Amino acid sequence: MSEPKRRKFWGWGYVGDGLDLIEVQALGSALASVLNLADVSVADPPRIGEIALRKPRLQPPDSMAEIFSTDRWDRAEHALGKSYDDLVRGLHGQYEHPPDLVAFPRDEADVVAVLEWCGDQNAAVIPYGGGSSVAGGVEPVVGDGYRGVVSLDLRRLDRVVEVDTISRAARIQAGVLGPSLEEQLRPHGLTLRHFPQSFEMSSLGGWIATRSAGHYATLHTHIDEFVEGLRALTPRGVLETRRLPASGAGPSPDRLFCGSEGVLGVITEAWMRLQERPRYRASAAIEFASFEEAVEACRTISQSGLHPANCRLLDQTEALISASGDGSAALLIVSFESADHSLDAWMARAIEICRSHSGKVPEGAQRTRTDETPAPEGAGGHWRNWFVRGGHLHDATIRLGMVNDTFETAITWDRFAQFHAGVLESTRRAMKEVCGQGLVSCRFAYVYPDGPAPYYTVMAPGKRGSEREQWAAIKEAASDSLIALGGTITHHHAVGRYHRRWYDRERPPLFADAMRAAKGALDPAGIMNPGVLFDPVQTLESPSRL
Amino acid sequence: MSEPKRRKFWGWGYVGDGLDLIEVQALGSALASVLNLADVSVADPPRIGEIALRKPRLQPPDSMAEIFSTDRWDRAEHALGKSYDDLVRGLHGQYEHPPDLVAFPRDEADVVAVLEWCGDQNAAVIPYGGGSSVAGGVEPVVGDGYRGVVSLDLRRLDRVVEVDTISRAARIQAGVLGPSLEEQLRPHGLTLRHFPQSFEMSSLGGWIATRSAGHYATLHTHIDEFVEGLRALTPRGVLETRRLPASGAGPSPDRLFCGSEGVLGVITEAWMRLQERPRYRASAAIEFASFEEAVEACRTISQSGLHPANCRLLDQTEALISASGDGSAALLIVSFESADHSLDAWMARAIEICRSHSGKVPEGAQRTRTDETPAPEGAGGHWRNWFVRGGHLHDATIRLGMVNDTFETAITWDRFAQFHAGVLESTRRAMKEVCGQGLVSCRFAYVYPDGPAPYYTVMAPGKRGSEREQWAAIKEAASDSLIALGGTITHHHAVGRYHRRWYDRERPPLFADAMRAAKGALDPAGIMNPGVLFDPVQTLESPSRL
Repeated sequence: MSEPKRRKFWGWGYVGDGLDLIEVQALGSALASVLNLADVSVADPPRIGEIALRKPRLQPPDSMAEIFSTDRWDRAEHALGKSYDDLVRGLHGQYEHPPDLVAFPRDEADVVAVLEWCGDQNAAVIPYGGGSSVAGGVEPVVGDGYRGVVSLDLRRLDRVVEVDTISRAARIQAGVLGPSLEEQLRPHGLTLRHFPQSFEMSSLGGWIATRSAGHYATLHTHIDEFVEGLRALTPRGVLETRRLPASGAGPSPDRLFCGSEGVLGVITEAWMRLQERPRYRASAAIEFASFEEAVEACRTISQSGLHPANCRLLDQTEALISASGDGSAALLIVSFESADHSLDAWMARAIEICRSHSGKVPEGAQRTRTDETPAPEGAGGHWRNWFVRGGHLHDATIRLGMVNDTFETAITWDRFAQFHAGVLESTRRAMKEVCGQGLVSCRFAYVYPDGPAPYYTVMAPGKRGSEREQWAAIKEAASDSLIALGGTITHHHAVGRYHRRWYDRERPPLFADAMRAAKGALDPAGIMNPGVLFDPVQTLESPSRL
Repeated sequence: MSEPKRRKFWGWGYVGDGLDLIEVQALGSALASVLNLADVSVADPPRIGEIALRKPRLQPPDSMAEIFSTDRWDRAEHALGKSYDDLVRGLHGQYEHPPDLVAFPRDEADVVAVLEWCGDQNAAVIPYGGGSSVAGGVEPVVGDGYRGVVSLDLRRLDRVVEVDTISRAARIQAGVLGPSLEEQLRPHGLTLRHFPQSFEMSSLGGWIATRSAGHYATLHTHIDEFVEGLRALTPRGVLETRRLPASGAGPSPDRLFCGSEGVLGVITEAWMRLQERPRYRASAAIEFASFEEAVEACRTISQSGLHPANCRLLDQTEALISASGDGSAALLIVSFESADHSLDAWMARAIEICRSHSGKVPEGAQRTRTDETPAPEGAGGHWRNWFVRGGHLHDATIRLGMVNDTFETAITWDRFAQFHAGVLESTRRAMKEVCGQGLVSCRFAYVYPDGPAPYYTVMAPGKRGSEREQWAAIKEAASDSLIALGGTITHHHAVGRYHRRWYDRERPPLFADAMRAAKGALDPAGIMNPGVLFDPVQTLESPSRL
């Protein structure tokens, strides 16, 4: 392992990082005050020596000893993702489905060897990048049809292999995590500029396999847009697509792998489209007394063709929770960036749009900056800090016994008002029923000409010992209403195992059949991440005729 | 049929349209002068009464008499596409593979009835939109495994069914042709703004099925980007995707149908993302003495984040042929358009980029216009007129005995110079060998941050009677070199039957297996457009291991 620090087996990030006890207690006091709670005590994180792990059911051959690990820490680390439910279970020592083995292949030949050995053993294989899944995408729950499960961790495939500064692209190994990727690109003056909230602990391959959404709030939001070509190892062999700026030759093979969540094979590397590092920046945090007016401003900006890099709308509650406002106004953070040109004209027009929707624009907001400060000051800066620390804050709220989860979707503008009211109503109702009280906030994570991608956060006091049931009730109410009202079950958190019930209602049944068949062609034994996206059994759905 | 005019069974457009004999002769004189030819005579188009058509091998049931046609004109019209080879064969009365029946369904129920009947009869079904395929995508050549072939013409499904002006989207039936689609959207102030060269004679469903590329030369070029949701009828039933601005829930079902070329089912309607009609326009035609400098200007603009609506580079020969220049300079047409804002800042920066690459910019080019003139004046206007009349001009050059074809591709910037030299060299060599002389020109049809989509035109004197062999030799040399040098066999002309040989080399073998399997799930009897994209037989390819 080339990593200097060990990754936590429970919680976000590396050992030693995150909030210390004093900070967690301070957060607890703040939450107690907002939610008017009497006592908020802090649970200790689990200790590796105290958790019970099932014995490995698989025994690696001596010849592959350098690839496989049966280490307790490794197995615990790969037993759960980072969803609310995962973290609560981990906190209470419930590691019921650890992988039997964790594989750390050093190169593609090792990946091939692992896939072959697993095929021979009838072992399921779960491709593992940074382990940041909040959808159960990496949890070794595969049913009874396998002799065991191997978590295939790609962290050793972490290099930028080739850089093309002319076309601005690079060939990158799939296991690299965000910070190392950016560090390797920096000497070339280039950046992938893909900053999902999980950036620190998520990998290129994971981003592609889950259709991650990153830095850009408009235009090119999903990682899909930046894949120029890719290479995947399937149980039947290698599949490599051409490196092309665009093609119209049949359905896109890259797009089949974007969102494939490990069920077709292991993405080992990709040619990615890069950006020059921005030199010009302009940004403003604009207040709106009315959320509805702010929504209209967002819609107008998203349809303007200005393509801001950021266009994030926080509702009043979200602004309050993130300490970006006092809760009296919705906050719209609009920013532009460029490596090529000053942004005065872009920002001036965006501000004009906000003003015409009664937005309160701070003085001097339209000025293009050319300094290297990445974070805008003021309310936008507060929000950004809060966003970047999200993983650590989530660990802390869970230790404080909160029911604290997020869910996200996308919907067209014409349906948004009714959709939003319905989602809030059913989520709040469930939350009140199971938690007594709490907050549900909303932000627009991304906006498109035809609709926003709203992102909801639930923060409610849990009852110690029954947080999982409380969470499940809220999650179910929220998800049911997302799907019933025409949204998608996920804009960028992926399907995994947790979203299956609702994904099955969203996805056309015949598309499920087509995907199952495609999987059958690449993974005939069905060993790749079974249970994710669809059940591996090759039965056909019954579509309606018309 | 609601169409006022009958479509030609040979050649482009409607009966009565196109160049008259005097105009064809004038074009012949012009070509004779450019290519230094002695005599250029004009062949007459074929007459419907004089061509031989095989008897229909299928007999429609009386109950479906209103759907099916066995009319000679209809069958001849659906026997060939609009490629060079199609037009030459048609001109000489070679209609060897007419469909046995042409179906004109009135609604989805009719489409279902046709698919069911064809399944029962073991008849192949070829979905047919505007019939403009230049890749053999609609030609009823399906091998010996079928009792007959039905061409399924969607022209009666031609309505804009629902318009959402808030999200700027509309639900549109797949059979509508470009002009009628735009006419129906105009009262709502909206436009799809998808103008492939085939616009007049191509359909929404055809655009989606072939990944057509349209008006926008940067950013959102392919129709794929504008599909919000779609509905397809497969032999196993209906597949309908949700109307969403974006989603991350598994691989995109819409993307599976984009480029599916009729092999999975019939696209019957789609929710499409629309644009407000532009009010601001700025454009300039910039001359470059050096093609290489012009390429660098294109690359810089494509990487600038300015996103021009047009950024078409014509090399010296292309400028000459299209009467947009005298052949001494390459011509770059850059234009911006917006419904929201003045474009002075955008155009000023694009011009600055061009000047820094020694481009000669006309006076006053950076001014934003707000009048309704769609076409820029001057050289850019000449080029546009030539482009719009492309179909009719192609008919005329074929009647004049020219070998006149186009091929197109995409490649990354780092490889472009070598690629372009190689493609020109092998194309010219083949052309000289079989035609003695001729012109090969190039334009950039589209440009992306990581590479251009070059479009090549061949114009050479054919030998009467052996034009097809001459064409095939040039096409083979060009295509071989596109694929050998790392390009794609098609950026927007689709694969069909003609590009299969090279597509098979471009496409990863395991992706072919996955697609064949997906087809098997939707079209178990394999009746949908067999022979396009892949052979229908369900054998697995042999991929390499690493």
